[in-house]
Amino acid sequence: MKASEKKFVHLYTGNGKGKTTAAIGLAIRAAGHGMKTYIGQFLKGQLYGELTELKNHPLITIEQHGDTKCIRKEDVTQAHIDQARLGLKKVSDAMLSGQYDILVMDEINVTVWFGLLSADEVIDVLKKRPDNLEVILTGRNAPEKLINAADLVTEMKEIKHYYTQGVLARDGIER
Amino acid sequence: MKASEKKFVHLYTGNGKGKTTAAIGLAIRAAGHGMKTYIGQFLKGQLYGELTELKNHPLITIEQHGDTKCIRKEDVTQAHIDQARLGLKKVSDAMLSGQYDILVMDEINVTVWFGLLSADEVIDVLKKRPDNLEVILTGRNAPEKLINAADLVTEMKEIKHYYTQGVLARDGIER
Repeated sequence: MKASEKKFVHLYTGNGKGKTTAAIGLAIRAAGHGMKTYIGQFLKGQLYGELTELKNHPLITIEQHGDTKCIRKEDVTQAHIDQARLGLKKVSDAMLSGQYDILVMDEINVTVWFGLLSADEVIDVLKKRPDNLEVILTGRNAPEKLINAADLVTEMKEIKHYYTQGVLARDGIER
Repeated sequence: MKASEKKFVHLYTGNGKGKTTAAIGLAIRAAGHGMKTYIGQFLKGQLYGELTELKNHPLITIEQHGDTKCIRKEDVTQAHIDQARLGLKKVSDAMLSGQYDILVMDEINVTVWFGLLSADEVIDVLKKRPDNLEVILTGRNAPEKLINAADLVTEMKEIKHYYTQGVLARDGIER
């Protein structure tokens, strides 16, 4: 990479499909150019296909922070909060390690929306971002403060969905 | 995969970032579950990182159809049309081969929007889709007919973009 290239904070939000997969796809695209990516996944809490597929990738590091899926605000426990805090610490360490070109905080938006972390805690980490690191934040319900902190914001907007046909999440497609 | 699982046609469109990368990420997620994906890229016409990265992947086949990037309708030539037709034929062959669980037609929406292929030609191919094949269509400016033919439609909507800060496409991020 040219040292002169400015790096950005991307944010993918919205109720549509493709937020996490766009971040994974970006890591693959970047790997094709020899760039290294760290992916920290919050709140996933189950085995997603990308973890199995990428865990031995030479240019991509992927870690799940938290082993319990949380899909409703009323289900939040202290364990979720502790796991999110530990996750943010690990992401922060990866950010400062100087090892990576791209860093993904997967589901960080919804982690903040659930109140597991504050937007300010995440922004404090973003402020420590080295100049040569591109950062991707994903998750629905992105808080205004994180949107303001991002340079590029894309809303994945659901126009039509087969959930309305009664289809549940499937291996390989939704996880 | 369970034979009883119904498969769908997804469509990613919109002016925002993440359409192609979401399709690539889905292929990676699926590979983690042992599923095979064919990706046919239309109108790319340059070396994208995903091609380099995935060309030797055991579960993902990726091919570029057409070697000339085309970004404006007025630049369309007969060569673009011929390449798009040949590409659709190859995608159709992949679809009918029975080898794949997922098939991606990358940039097919914009290929139709440019008039290189008609929506009906693409829909005729979709109609031949085996019951056990999930299909992903990507590209901005999706024609109404393709939107109607899809089960799941996501609009990647640009909310904020650094292009407005004068930043051009970069290796590993935009290509």
